Amino acid sequence: MVIMTLNCGSSSVKYQIYDWDNKTRLASGVVERVTQKGSAIEHEAKGKPEYKKEHDCPDHKEAIKLIMEAILDPEYGAIKDPSEIKAVGHRVVHGGEKFASSVIITDEVIKGFKEIAHLAPLHNPANIQGIEAAKDILPDVPHCAIMDTAWHQTMPASSYIYALPYEWYTKYGVRRYGFHGTSFLYTSRRAAVLLGKKPSEANLIIAHIGNGASINAVKNGCSYDTSMGLTPLEGLVMGTRSGDIDPAIPFYMMNQTGMSPAEMETALNKKSGVLGITSKWVDRRDVEIAAEKGDQQAILCQKIEAYRIRKYVGAYMAALGRVDAIVFTAGVGEKGPITRQMALEGLENLGIKLDPERNKASMTRNAETIISTDDSPVKVFVIPTDEEMVMTEDTYALLNNTYDVHTNFTYSFESPDYVNKDRLEKLPKDLKKWQGLDKIILNKK
Amino acid sequence: MVIMTLNCGSSSVKYQIYDWDNKTRLASGVVERVTQKGSAIEHEAKGKPEYKKEHDCPDHKEAIKLIMEAILDPEYGAIKDPSEIKAVGHRVVHGGEKFASSVIITDEVIKGFKEIAHLAPLHNPANIQGIEAAKDILPDVPHCAIMDTAWHQTMPASSYIYALPYEWYTKYGVRRYGFHGTSFLYTSRRAAVLLGKKPSEANLIIAHIGNGASINAVKNGCSYDTSMGLTPLEGLVMGTRSGDIDPAIPFYMMNQTGMSPAEMETALNKKSGVLGITSKWVDRRDVEIAAEKGDQQAILCQKIEAYRIRKYVGAYMAALGRVDAIVFTAGVGEKGPITRQMALEGLENLGIKLDPERNKASMTRNAETIISTDDSPVKVFVIPTDEEMVMTEDTYALLNNTYDVHTNFTYSFESPDYVNKDRLEKLPKDLKKWQGLDKIILNKK
Repeated sequence: MVIMTLNCGSSSVKYQIYDWDNKTRLASGVVERVTQKGSAIEHEAKGKPEYKKEHDCPDHKEAIKLIMEAILDPEYGAIKDPSEIKAVGHRVVHGGEKFASSVIITDEVIKGFKEIAHLAPLHNPANIQGIEAAKDILPDVPHCAIMDTAWHQTMPASSYIYALPYEWYTKYGVRRYGFHGTSFLYTSRRAAVLLGKKPSEANLIIAHIGNGASINAVKNGCSYDTSMGLTPLEGLVMGTRSGDIDPAIPFYMMNQTGMSPAEMETALNKKSGVLGITSKWVDRRDVEIAAEKGDQQAILCQKIEAYRIRKYVGAYMAALGRVDAIVFTAGVGEKGPITRQMALEGLENLGIKLDPERNKASMTRNAETIISTDDSPVKVFVIPTDEEMVMTEDTYALLNNTYDVHTNFTYSFESPDYVNKDRLEKLPKDLKKWQGLDKIILNKK
Repeated sequence: MVIMTLNCGSSSVKYQIYDWDNKTRLASGVVERVTQKGSAIEHEAKGKPEYKKEHDCPDHKEAIKLIMEAILDPEYGAIKDPSEIKAVGHRVVHGGEKFASSVIITDEVIKGFKEIAHLAPLHNPANIQGIEAAKDILPDVPHCAIMDTAWHQTMPASSYIYALPYEWYTKYGVRRYGFHGTSFLYTSRRAAVLLGKKPSEANLIIAHIGNGASINAVKNGCSYDTSMGLTPLEGLVMGTRSGDIDPAIPFYMMNQTGMSPAEMETALNKKSGVLGITSKWVDRRDVEIAAEKGDQQAILCQKIEAYRIRKYVGAYMAALGRVDAIVFTAGVGEKGPITRQMALEGLENLGIKLDPERNKASMTRNAETIISTDDSPVKVFVIPTDEEMVMTEDTYALLNNTYDVHTNFTYSFESPDYVNKDRLEKLPKDLKKWQGLDKIILNKK
């Protein structure tokens, strides 16, 4: 069975075509600059050359048409006929309190998303447009929604209620929701496998550090607390988002400069974080290069970013009491040994013994590695995330009536024998590139 | 030498008259509801009956006159002539980056305070009014300023720079300043004494939990990080302040309700925190009573408040690497065993072993106690704070040319033989009241 997953952002659409029976990714790619000028698709199908094409996409429907064209292309494509796609899984950023699990999308469900769209004005409208466009283009198959927030619905009230007027919660839905849920679900289940534990026995701290970044305290296999809040603005230092600040700062700065609330919100979301501190860079690789050359703002930025991660690790160790493993995932988490080291070095008193050599060697996105010492009470893993796998499997299970909320569901990747074949194929190249990588790979099956 | 200290808030003036030579408090009190209707003084002098008087105080000058009248009163007072007062120490909340130590107040200094008044519009204008009024009433003695922020000027940039556009710092002074500095200075030096260490050897986490609340990571005797930020709004749950929130929430709520930025700032400062969660109470004792009766909002409030403290304790353990002691101080810190227990129980893996019986017994403000077990690697102390002592001693030292910035200054209360005589006199009453208190008192001299 071939399943398509779609992740419609405000100006991009990411996709994957997955052959469930053969557990193989047939194709994946992204359309960038949707609704802007200069939009283009980057596409890669299994065993085919990479493919790029510029094409104006004034809306998400045009972007999905462009994707269908690429998937069906005789030279670069992955399937011969649209009817081979048996279902579509859509990423939906905000499910509010209404959606604690994945669902087949009905008119009622779309109505539900529209009712909570105000909670995520930067994300949910694009998700809804993407769903409606995809349903137009592939009208005869089931479409499913997988919510970023669903994973975190297990948090206790002491984690999700802010010290704000309580009716802001009851009337307006102001609470901590948390995001990156599919990533935390995937990596937490994989971490349990690597620990040789059941998910319900594992206490974990998972740092998903990409352009967006959040961190998750996982207690007995379930989300217990997380750094993102009502929106993805709270918490860690991100590419352009501030993360935690004194809530009085925006008011002080509006008074000082005459900025409007809308301008302030944009500044906090688009001009802060790594970009704010360095005034130049968003990408952490650019910051690393500048820091190596001695750029003082770049060095300060690395320190602040790592220190914020360190403080959340400590906070969640106190929240959980016992921690089995700390997990790094996503772009910077998987390929950022400097950030990882600055965040975790010197924490032996908390039971965390990072191995600097192992940490340096862990630069692959194609294997799971351990970067703590053998005698470290708290293990430190780097686990490449796979949000598409969760979306694909939820969609498959919903279609087959085997689906259940994540707390009652056993995913295929929870098997000790699970292996991501697509990644395994790419690993030999990485093994040549990163010295010592072979010694830290876990689950070599 | 008799030294007066004054703490002028926006609607209150607290004061103390201290006899430096005999190390005795001669009098102390507070004028409440200054600039409002129904203002009144509560005053108590050593060996005299308590004294209360209603008197309209439209400004801080009238309040200070009322204080002078009480101090000089033949029946209730402490001195016979104003000329006995040889110096006045003023609390100033915000010293910005300009004031890293206490100073004798000159015209130049007042000009400096006015230049940074925009950083603390809720606090500094009242401080300046208080200084000017007190200089009018006691024109012939030196007046000194002791800044709440000065203690925290040792923080590294990675602690005080936010992930915001960097020019907000360079042009507008947006950074973490931290507050409660005199309290942290006093309790950190006392903790070092109790540990038998030099201050420069002590790594501490100090939780100052009162109506306002903040927490301080102390590394080698100096402030390394703290939970309050540009203003006192950030960090822990407070009586009416929100502490940490998603910075997007105010914008979301302004959009939803049409609240203005000024109304929002008031809601975050005056209608949030304990009051926000419970909708009824500000005082933690009221919350405790309600929680005991099973009030669900009161129980939730206690959980959220303690959980926030717990997360900061963990965060600062990670920040410091090694921690010698955790210290509780101020109203709730000194008399809130429930909050302390909920914040620290189950942290044995982090080296913190709270003794529940000792914790319950520690309810005095008149002695320093230990509430961890004898074998706890991290000690837990309850240390009654004494901000007035720091203000008094700084003032005395400035007058005698022996003053230096706190990193180079040895306070009288750093002596192993130091004892607060006024408190020692009150202790026998507490010893009768709290069973087991006698067994946990430290420094019994």
